[in-house]
Order: sequence, then C-alpha cells, then structure tokens
Amino acid sequence: MELKLAFIGFGNVARAFARMLCAHRSRLAEEYDLTWKVTALATGKHGCVLSQSALDVEEAVAVVERNESLTELSTVRAAHDSIEIIQACDADVLFETTPLDPDSGEPAAAYIRSALSRGINVVTANKGPIAFAHRELKTLAGTNGVAFRFEGTVMDGAPVFNLAEYCLPATRVLGFYGLLNSTTNIILTGMESGQSFDESLAEATRLGIAEANPDYDIDGWDAAVKTVALANVLMNANARPSDVKRAGIRAVSSEHLKSAAQGGNAVRLVARAETAGDGLRLTVSPETVPLASPLGCARGASNVLVIKTDLMGEIAIFETDPGVEQTAYALLSDLIRIHEDLMTERRHKI
Amino acid sequence: MELKLAFIGFGNVARAFARMLCAHRSRLAEEYDLTWKVTALATGKHGCVLSQSALDVEEAVAVVERNESLTELSTVRAAHDSIEIIQACDADVLFETTPLDPDSGEPAAAYIRSALSRGINVVTANKGPIAFAHRELKTLAGTNGVAFRFEGTVMDGAPVFNLAEYCLPATRVLGFYGLLNSTTNIILTGMESGQSFDESLAEATRLGIAEANPDYDIDGWDAAVKTVALANVLMNANARPSDVKRAGIRAVSSEHLKSAAQGGNAVRLVARAETAGDGLRLTVSPETVPLASPLGCARGASNVLVIKTDLMGEIAIFETDPGVEQTAYALLSDLIRIHEDLMTERRHKI
Repeated sequence: MELKLAFIGFGNVARAFARMLCAHRSRLAEEYDLTWKVTALATGKHGCVLSQSALDVEEAVAVVERNESLTELSTVRAAHDSIEIIQACDADVLFETTPLDPDSGEPAAAYIRSALSRGINVVTANKGPIAFAHRELKTLAGTNGVAFRFEGTVMDGAPVFNLAEYCLPATRVLGFYGLLNSTTNIILTGMESGQSFDESLAEATRLGIAEANPDYDIDGWDAAVKTVALANVLMNANARPSDVKRAGIRAVSSEHLKSAAQGGNAVRLVARAETAGDGLRLTVSPETVPLASPLGCARGASNVLVIKTDLMGEIAIFETDPGVEQTAYALLSDLIRIHEDLMTERRHKI
Repeated sequence: MELKLAFIGFGNVARAFARMLCAHRSRLAEEYDLTWKVTALATGKHGCVLSQSALDVEEAVAVVERNESLTELSTVRAAHDSIEIIQACDADVLFETTPLDPDSGEPAAAYIRSALSRGINVVTANKGPIAFAHRELKTLAGTNGVAFRFEGTVMDGAPVFNLAEYCLPATRVLGFYGLLNSTTNIILTGMESGQSFDESLAEATRLGIAEANPDYDIDGWDAAVKTVALANVLMNANARPSDVKRAGIRAVSSEHLKSAAQGGNAVRLVARAETAGDGLRLTVSPETVPLASPLGCARGASNVLVIKTDLMGEIAIFETDPGVEQTAYALLSDLIRIHEDLMTERRHKI
C-alpha cells in the first residue's frame, strides 16, 4: 500500500524522520509492504509546497539545511501556509511537528483538528495538543475513522503510550513517576561532575536537546506538559499544564548536589502523578533520590518512567541517552502502526 | 465471545491466574467482551478432569490447595493424563504451566505441539519450549492458524516479547543484557546487606521464587534458558541452552561483594547476547557493575532487560520486585491478545 505523506513543520525531528524513511525504504517495503511518497511540506521559514506526484525528500532536506526555499524544488507548486497545505494535500498521513506553544498547544492543535476533520491520519511529536486537547482530538479522530498517534511526544521513541496501549491490557495505571526532561538531567548530572550550570546548559544546547527557550526546560514547564500528556492518556485524566504543582531546578546548587552525592544520593527533576482522594496530584520538582535507583542512575539525556499498575505491579521503561533519531523513530513507529491497521482493514474488505 | 479454557498444570502460577480471571470477570466482559469457562484441568498430583459444561474454578483452586483430588468436583469426568485432556478438551485456549525440565523442554513442548496440531491456541509460562523449540512451535502454530504466546516465560508479566512485537516495529535487536533470575539477585543483594548465602536463599524459597531445585537458579541454568528464549525470539536465533557460556554465583563471596560496594559497585548475575562475527555470543556470569546503573540498582527479586536496537538506540524495561501475580498477569495479557485477534477476525467475517 502506498501512503501519501504530508509534513507540517520540517525541523530537526521531521528531517531526521525523512532521512530515516529514505534510508530504510526497502526495509519498509519488504517487511511491511509499506511504500510512501511525500506530497506536501509546510515550513515556517522555507516556504510551503505541494506536489501532484511526489517531492524529492532528500533534496527537500538538503534545501532546508542550506537555508534555501522549498519552492525551488521541481514538481512543486507553492502554497500560502500550513492550513492551505492541510486543505489541499490529500495525504493519507500528516506529520505535525511545529514548534510548541506551551501556553495553549496552538497552532498545532488547530492543524491536527483540521487534518483529522478532513479524514487524514495524524502523527504528532508535539506534546502541547496532548496536554491541552487529547480527549477532544481522540474523539474527533474516532468520529472521522482515522488514527491520531503521538508516541514521540514523551520520552522520544521509547514506547510509553504504545506500551500501555498494546502491552498492559486490562490494567489500571494507578500513578507514575519519572524523569521526562533531558535538558535538566544533563544540567544536574553535569553539575554533579563538576561543571557549572551554564557549561552544562551549553552542552544541552550544543546537543540540540535544550528547547529554543531553555527557561521552558529549566523551570519545569516541559516536564509539566509531558506529565499532563501522560496523565491524560494513561490515566484518562482531563488535566491541563496549569494543574501541575511545578518547581524547576534554578534553586539547585552545586553544594546541594555535592551533599546529596556524599549520602549516596542524587538530585533529579522528578515528575509524579498520584491519585489523591477523588483527584490526581501532578507535580514536577527537584527531589533527592538514591543514586542506586532507576531515577538516580539515569544520567545525561536519559529518561525513565516508572508506571504503577493494579494487575502488573510496577514496571519502568528506561531510555538511554536519546537524541533526535529516537524521536524520529517514534514517527516511524506511528506510521507503521497506521499502515498495519489500514492493511488489516483492507485485507478483510477484499 | 466466550472462550473455553484448559489448564495443563495447576501450580502456583496457574492458580494465581485462575484467581485473577475470577476476580476480574466483569472487567474482562465489559472492556473486552471476553467471557470464559474452564472445561479441563490436568495436574500432576491432583488428577485430571474434563467438563462438558464448566468447572467451578474457584472450587478447583480450593480443592488443590486442600491437597484433595479434582475428581471430587461436580460436573466433571476423570481423564487419565494430560495428553488425553488435550485430545478431548475441545478448548479454545490451553494454558501450559507444567514444571520445567531444563535439559529438554519436555514434556511441555510435546503438550504444546499436540494442542497446536489440534487447532488450539496455546499460552505457556514455560521457558523450556521457547529455548528448545521456538521456531518449530511458531511454525506449527502458523500452519494450524492458531496463536502461540509466551509472555510469562521471561521476566514474568513485564512485556518483553510484546514490547518487541508491538512497540519496536522495523527495528533490529542488535543485542541485549540484563538480570533475568530473581533468586540469584535476592541472594546477591541479601549478601550485600550482610545476610549469609543460605539465609538469602531461604528467603527466596520462602517467597516462592527459588526453583524447586535451587541449583538450577544458582548455577545460572534458569538465566541461560531465558537468555536463549530471548535470543530465539528477539534476534531470530536458533540457539539452545548448551550454547550459553555459563557461570553461576557459587564463587561470589561476601568479601567480593564488600569490596565491590566500597568502589560504588555491585556484583550481579548478568545475561548477555552479543553479535560476534557471523554468530551470537550468549553468556551468563557474575559481573561487577556500577551500583548507580540499571543493573546495579535492581535489588531483590527485581529484573531488568536492556535491549540494543538499530533504529531506537538502547531502551530498558525494569520490573520491580515481581511475584507470582506478575506471571499470572502474563497469562492474562496473552489471553486478551488472543481474544482480540479472534474478535478482529470474526468482526471482519460478518
């Protein structure tokens, strides 16, 4: 089955995904009977283009990385903006990876809403829409008979949502805790090793891991938005980022870290969801944890999520030192899942 | 859809599973449209029985725990042995949980072979057949159009096989390492805390975690069989337990552990699969690892598996302090998966 793909946003993650698609074209065709072509690309700074046939994706990646305009590609026509692209692209699957507005989840949620309403399957790596509008978007996808997938929004490609959806049937998630923000973990473990806050932050920026505005990481907003996304999906909550009791890592000094280390401990920015009475208590704050624990042993960009369930006890998933490739993989795994489901439908229709 | 269930083996794990089925009967019916009845039970010491209608499962659990014979139950007729049960039970799903023979995987593999050949879906918690005959049994299941599932064979209910099957599409598993045996980990971490080897082993026995013959744990056989099961399934190997370079924990003394701890390290019985040239190198041996690492921080019965992949980098799954309930959950999750697949088939046939 050949799928027509559209990209809204063509930054680091989307381009890494595009390169992965090209590099593994034959693996996808041979193992999944999945072939694809890209028919639309919308970017903030490099133009928006549509193609009747197929865009040259490798050339598109190169054009953007040379900081040129996509309209120079052959076989394309220019479009005005992302909304025009979504309305005109006639894609099977749309990949939404625009920059995040942590205060509203917009315009990403609007793009997703528009695509789902037009009967287009959507994959996003954007946690905002999950934190602000998961329930609405899931319902909209159901009404339109399409998929809405978002594995890459939390812990990159480590399968947290898919684990819960496919591997923990009949369980109730009673709560969770974990390290969800790589930048703050790079800073805290860098400071443990004797670097300054600024040196460690510079390293996270150099690795392409820190947000464009690192305050968003440092003050715990990124972790809070992810905590809400997890609570909304795994625990069927209807929370918003403002529901999270949040403290960042600005008050954590080298002295704190040294004194913790002397006691066999570490300081980590821990996200937690706990049932409290009838409600749910969501927190993000620096905690002192044993070095020899799943949280304490996670260094650098590594993330970890511990899930407490009723029938399966406690399990954790641990992602070692992720980079942009891992987020790109999340988009790939979502694409394969959508394709598999379409194939099952088609096979049974014939 | 009502499924007829048969049990070959009705020990701790199978009885915990039976209790879980009864306790969550309405959850399964409401959320999965899954209803069930047990029509056959085969045990080593408490008789083998069949029922035309349905056995009273709660009563069967009680009878076995009172050390009485199942033939005293109402609405049953006695059968001679497991093979007769498999031939006569007419079940939809058969749960194979007989004691393990680590040298051959028999008679469990024979039971599974017989059931699959008769078109019965099989779930096993028995790692022997996966280590000795995974490829053959998988092919046999395919030929007969039925499922063969075994999530409970390694790391209890922690989804290691399902994670690879459903959550890591298109990846290649390049290798793995982990702690797969709870008894040796209870002993090693008990000795770290100042207990003797024998005291720690007694605790593992008391918890019902040590094998009937604990040599099998202590000498690394259990971990070796699990390593082979993982390699056969995750890496499509065709290995046997004798292919594992194996050393147990008998040579690890309290002095070793003390000296490791002074350096911030721990000794753990580590299972590894690594590609080496054209082949695969499988090892189980005590290793000195940092306390602040996924392996070092796993204490007591906890297990951990780190999987290295090509597209998704390295991820780990961590199971905190599992007991028999977690293995029972593996059987439940396999049952739900089989039921879901049968429902998909049926829905599309109508």
